[in-house]
Amino acid sequence: MVTTRQVRLAQRPTGLPDDDTWEVTTDELPAPGEGEFLVEIDHISLDPAMRGWLDDVPSYLPPVRLGAVMRAQGTGTVSQSRHPDFPVGAAVTGTFGVTERAVSDGTGVRVIDTSIAGPATWLGALGMTGLTAFHGLHEVGELAAGDTVVISAAAGGVGSVAGQIAHAAGATVIGIAGGPEKCAWLREIGFDAAIDYKSENVLRRLREVAPDGIDIYFDNVGGEILDAALANLRRGARVILCGAIASYNATTPPPGPRRYMSLLVNRARMQGFLVFDYPEKDAAAIASLAAMAAEGSLVSRETVVDGSVADFGATFLRLFRGENTGKLVMCIAEIY
Amino acid sequence: MVTTRQVRLAQRPTGLPDDDTWEVTTDELPAPGEGEFLVEIDHISLDPAMRGWLDDVPSYLPPVRLGAVMRAQGTGTVSQSRHPDFPVGAAVTGTFGVTERAVSDGTGVRVIDTSIAGPATWLGALGMTGLTAFHGLHEVGELAAGDTVVISAAAGGVGSVAGQIAHAAGATVIGIAGGPEKCAWLREIGFDAAIDYKSENVLRRLREVAPDGIDIYFDNVGGEILDAALANLRRGARVILCGAIASYNATTPPPGPRRYMSLLVNRARMQGFLVFDYPEKDAAAIASLAAMAAEGSLVSRETVVDGSVADFGATFLRLFRGENTGKLVMCIAEIY
Repeated sequence: MVTTRQVRLAQRPTGLPDDDTWEVTTDELPAPGEGEFLVEIDHISLDPAMRGWLDDVPSYLPPVRLGAVMRAQGTGTVSQSRHPDFPVGAAVTGTFGVTERAVSDGTGVRVIDTSIAGPATWLGALGMTGLTAFHGLHEVGELAAGDTVVISAAAGGVGSVAGQIAHAAGATVIGIAGGPEKCAWLREIGFDAAIDYKSENVLRRLREVAPDGIDIYFDNVGGEILDAALANLRRGARVILCGAIASYNATTPPPGPRRYMSLLVNRARMQGFLVFDYPEKDAAAIASLAAMAAEGSLVSRETVVDGSVADFGATFLRLFRGENTGKLVMCIAEIY
Repeated sequence: MVTTRQVRLAQRPTGLPDDDTWEVTTDELPAPGEGEFLVEIDHISLDPAMRGWLDDVPSYLPPVRLGAVMRAQGTGTVSQSRHPDFPVGAAVTGTFGVTERAVSDGTGVRVIDTSIAGPATWLGALGMTGLTAFHGLHEVGELAAGDTVVISAAAGGVGSVAGQIAHAAGATVIGIAGGPEKCAWLREIGFDAAIDYKSENVLRRLREVAPDGIDIYFDNVGGEILDAALANLRRGARVILCGAIASYNATTPPPGPRRYMSLLVNRARMQGFLVFDYPEKDAAAIASLAAMAAEGSLVSRETVVDGSVADFGATFLRLFRGENTGKLVMCIAEIY
């Protein structure tokens, strides 16, 4: 028997989660049965999409049940195993939840090579985050060399990887982010231009830096920035709906995009997707991203916050204050 | 020398056009030169899209210039010709403008067979209206047998043809229209269900008649009905943006679709198109529509208003009062 501390959903939040949302419990885990293994979790991924899982409404994934362990991606090391594909000592990634240890039967779990990149990167640029950027640009955006690509929340996990994928593909890449530091970083990692939405008029600046219009707008925020992009579409443009962090915590629905009729005038489309939609293309996408990382054309910035699972609630709120640059990860066990 | 009365744009309207918008002039036309011909116009098409052409803003077509003859599709008979493809006596259709006579060099003009259908139908189900419905459903909507197709402004020109195309293709077709008479007519021409937006809750009724969700929503109106459709999408749905008659006369932009994030959850897309985008497919589309008409599976209802070109302004306003069923056409010369 081993024990694990884990974070459970105690109460569904209205707006931003708070202390009442979570409960930390200490539980015993059964020993792994035949075909199972035990993982000592070292890193846990924090994603804006998690907010959506807290609401009891039909969505692309079932909501987290009240009382259940909070759903989360993580990395860890196999410490006991009765599964041939996941031997003791293997580094793995999977949806283990916000917990210190988990027993798994291998469903959705992948062995990772931590000599290519560390666990935080496997949760980010080489994990769901990278796949989201990759599939969004290729499957929905039909990315091609010469495209003008605009990305919001560009200094975030998905945005920063998307920008580098587009840059490597020969596109002109414009990032929108908050503050001069994030914008400077975007230019460092290959963005052709960066717009600071906190100090600049996004609509006007887009007109300046993309005078011929936008071919792909990768939307991570919704709201006024989506409208500014819609107002600057080029004919045949693709608007990729990847999320709308501005509204995840809204208690009343935000206004819709006023400029949506730009889709008609420009024969453009706005299309949603989820990272889970292209499982048959995941392996090739990760191979492509790993190759970029190896040749130095995929800079991955993670904000790694040290702590215990009990710090999950407070750490999660950082996503909605625009404080982190790149992928947000909690490190709950030092392994190196 | 012949003379023609024609309607010119005197002043750009704010909101709905009124008497100050138009000026009726009588002008002399030069005799047709080499490669030209003279058309005696008998029918003029009235379309919601015309409202957009009156605003001095960049759009898919240049705005009608102040003082210029109002742009319009029409049908007529060639009365003088120095063009081999358009002999005297030929029935033709083209963008002749709101005028009694026009000299043309044949650009965009097609000879029509009025033994298949009368001029009003050639301006409707077998003209731009039919092409709009056809290309929207096939090129943007990727219509397939078994699809659940919802159409707004379903008793209008484009909507009624779209419903019949979808029905003939083996789809389940639901129309949204205003009033019991229009709804009864929709059921007559093959719609599986009709929703009266004036007396019914569209969102709730859509849930009842399309319990598994909508595959294609053909949007002709925008506004709340678009939102109701977005709330009922099925995974992979296509929302075809064909127009937004509710907002053509708005002086402030209407609210955007609040439910647009349904596109994300349902991996759906919303896409605009214009009838002009598929010229290489027009001939096949019209042949297909003419075949449907010949076998009786394409009922075309036109509201034909007799009058002179001077009545254009007043007749145009009928489009925005929901008074007409089917395609609205003015007959300015009795030819049969």
